Amino acid sequence: MKNIRVGLLGIGTVGGGTFEVLRRNQDEIRRRAGSGIVITAVADLNVERARSIVGDDVQVVSDARQIIANPDIDVVIELIGGYGIARELVLEAIAAGKHVVTANKALLAVHGTEIFHAAAQKGVIVAYEAAVAGGIPIIKALREGLAANRIDWVAGIINGTTNFILSEMRDKGLSFAEVLTEAQRLGYAEADPTFDIEGVDAAHKITLMSAIAFGIPVQFDKAYVEGITQLHRPDIRYAEQLGYRIKLLGIAKRTAQGIELRVHPSLIPAKRLIASVEGAMNAVVVHGDAVGTTLHYGKGAGAEPTASAVIADLVDIARLQGADAVHQVPALAFQASSLTAASDNLPVLPMDDIVTGYYLRARVADEAGVLATITRILADAGISVDAMLQRESDEVSEFSENAPHKAQTDLIILTHDTREGTLNQALTQIQQLPSVLAPIVRIRKEELN
Amino acid sequence: MKNIRVGLLGIGTVGGGTFEVLRRNQDEIRRRAGSGIVITAVADLNVERARSIVGDDVQVVSDARQIIANPDIDVVIELIGGYGIARELVLEAIAAGKHVVTANKALLAVHGTEIFHAAAQKGVIVAYEAAVAGGIPIIKALREGLAANRIDWVAGIINGTTNFILSEMRDKGLSFAEVLTEAQRLGYAEADPTFDIEGVDAAHKITLMSAIAFGIPVQFDKAYVEGITQLHRPDIRYAEQLGYRIKLLGIAKRTAQGIELRVHPSLIPAKRLIASVEGAMNAVVVHGDAVGTTLHYGKGAGAEPTASAVIADLVDIARLQGADAVHQVPALAFQASSLTAASDNLPVLPMDDIVTGYYLRARVADEAGVLATITRILADAGISVDAMLQRESDEVSEFSENAPHKAQTDLIILTHDTREGTLNQALTQIQQLPSVLAPIVRIRKEELN
Repeated sequence: MKNIRVGLLGIGTVGGGTFEVLRRNQDEIRRRAGSGIVITAVADLNVERARSIVGDDVQVVSDARQIIANPDIDVVIELIGGYGIARELVLEAIAAGKHVVTANKALLAVHGTEIFHAAAQKGVIVAYEAAVAGGIPIIKALREGLAANRIDWVAGIINGTTNFILSEMRDKGLSFAEVLTEAQRLGYAEADPTFDIEGVDAAHKITLMSAIAFGIPVQFDKAYVEGITQLHRPDIRYAEQLGYRIKLLGIAKRTAQGIELRVHPSLIPAKRLIASVEGAMNAVVVHGDAVGTTLHYGKGAGAEPTASAVIADLVDIARLQGADAVHQVPALAFQASSLTAASDNLPVLPMDDIVTGYYLRARVADEAGVLATITRILADAGISVDAMLQRESDEVSEFSENAPHKAQTDLIILTHDTREGTLNQALTQIQQLPSVLAPIVRIRKEELN
Repeated sequence: MKNIRVGLLGIGTVGGGTFEVLRRNQDEIRRRAGSGIVITAVADLNVERARSIVGDDVQVVSDARQIIANPDIDVVIELIGGYGIARELVLEAIAAGKHVVTANKALLAVHGTEIFHAAAQKGVIVAYEAAVAGGIPIIKALREGLAANRIDWVAGIINGTTNFILSEMRDKGLSFAEVLTEAQRLGYAEADPTFDIEGVDAAHKITLMSAIAFGIPVQFDKAYVEGITQLHRPDIRYAEQLGYRIKLLGIAKRTAQGIELRVHPSLIPAKRLIASVEGAMNAVVVHGDAVGTTLHYGKGAGAEPTASAVIADLVDIARLQGADAVHQVPALAFQASSLTAASDNLPVLPMDDIVTGYYLRARVADEAGVLATITRILADAGISVDAMLQRESDEVSEFSENAPHKAQTDLIILTHDTREGTLNQALTQIQQLPSVLAPIVRIRKEELN
């Protein structure tokens, strides 16, 4: 079979890795794909750098549209990033009848509906394994490997930067700010880390997984997004003492009422395999009604792990490109005609309607009756307590980020599953008690079983 | 699109699970596959039981060949097991132009070359996700998701029965025989557990994974197979003290000399994620040159987890069946014309040529000079010691399975990577020393990093 000719838009870290792996493993890949896969043209604003990477046998241009217009190109890889020019180029490539491979989670989470619709109309493939969890073939697992299942929930550590920061905070007892600086120095966090530490990147990824898990459109605007910037050392320690670890999870869960779609720090039982995922590694847990729990672990970022996913998509396209649209794997796992509209019976739920357990920490005056008052408010709201921990001022001072006060104590409560709206009402009451000296810390808890 | 009509050969545990999941999730599966997937006929020697499971709308016959001969059937699921009649029926189904889905690892590990060749000639698909690691979509991950990679090695806990036994031996300090009895009572081990505990089942599975990882034929006859029946409690304890756990691993590794293909108990560092895989769960670690290390975890057996894999194959077939053979995913991951023959430069190596670390335990007389003599023999053979542990008779007696002898001590040595042939020669020398009182225990050690 003739070679698949690929045009690469943007040759930065991942683009360079993709070029290198395709060249290094070209024989292996040809033996798998049945045809060679060759990058024949590269577009990058920095033509000189691009030329230095790809050598003289590959066309290098500064204008991506020259590649899209080239009738010899079968597949376009978009590695530019962002929502702006990347969206235009992807839509133009589709219009030109090219298959598209992209690692751009932000683009697909926000404009996926438009892009997948355009691709379906044109009968081309838009593949995006690299957009979620780097080298882990989780899109393929959800879309094909677990296709027999009614997926109940997906929960993942899908941002390496924040997992690195949380691992370091726990291991070394450092504050968020201290570890962030260190992570930036080591290259684990970007100069502007906002998308990572505020949970936006994880939200893009869980939005994509929610779509293919449940057959709903991508709805990034409905996702609840909370990062790790407000996490404090004492809570990491208290969680540990209670048998939990704190991880930033992306969660998509199907309930009778609709879909929970949320990113936030979560307590998870230390004995779960995913609790031991440390450093910049990623892992996604999927629970299906037939298969039960599966876990998929690997590197979530980096040049070659991401290239591994980009090239897997190219191999899929090489295998499928002669097949008509009906025989292709649908971009969002479910046939386009079978996607459940946002307005149907699977709405993304407001956060008040989610149900989960909670970790609460109240810094209270060390005086009689406080505990009784707080547990009474919880009981009256129908919130049942799973575990409790009290740490006196001496112990508190060891952890305290502010100057300790002798008459203070930390009260830590784990609740059983509770509707978040109900919890919020109870917390408002508790917060107003004169004995409660600081804003109550509230972290959600996922049992993942 | 019209429904895919499936004939099921053998409706035991997995067959029943497949029927149930296909029925329960029929809407979900149709939305994914683009066409309905319906079991229209079942063959089972026990017609009455089959009828009680599938009801009146499904044809039930006792003769599997009636299903193979039925021109209305698109796909045959073989869940009979074994090498005999199953092989005949699979070959006949292929000859009749049916796609085949099977969970029969034994059949494919032994007769795979013949079967895949027949399928390629006929242009039909033989799919076998359920044959390895139950519900974990590891065949798809290796064959498609990681297609960009030169796979360096695959190592897996791929037999739930033995992992359950090892977990229990460690947790409860019980002997192999005690736990086996308990496992049989709980249904985790079969009445005749030979295939599981002797490593044969794991060897079938790692043989299949070696083929798709490296593009070589299935060569079960070349696999080294060692089970867990000779494992003793003290070694599990000593391994723990050295920071390792003992797991039965299936290992396929590419070296410059060829392929290592082996199943045996292995020490693995306790801090690796796979070391925490407990009970009857399975996990496969894959190392690719681009992606690095990935881990795939889930239930390795049971009616519905296995059904999940069987049905994923059916969905793949539904999506691909209109595509011609060129566009199908090749059964062994590499195009049939690109498989490396057994006689080529990737031979399966004899065990003398594998290179790994070792755990050694010698029960020796507690007298001066023994340690010096043993370490001298190792040093002369060029075998370097990574760690050492000596346990005096008092401690030994705590673990000892036989009556302790006061003048005995246990000497435990971890070696660095060593060629097995070299080690064996040194062990022969050590074993002949008069101070060595019992056969030396030798367990291989895998760092998996």
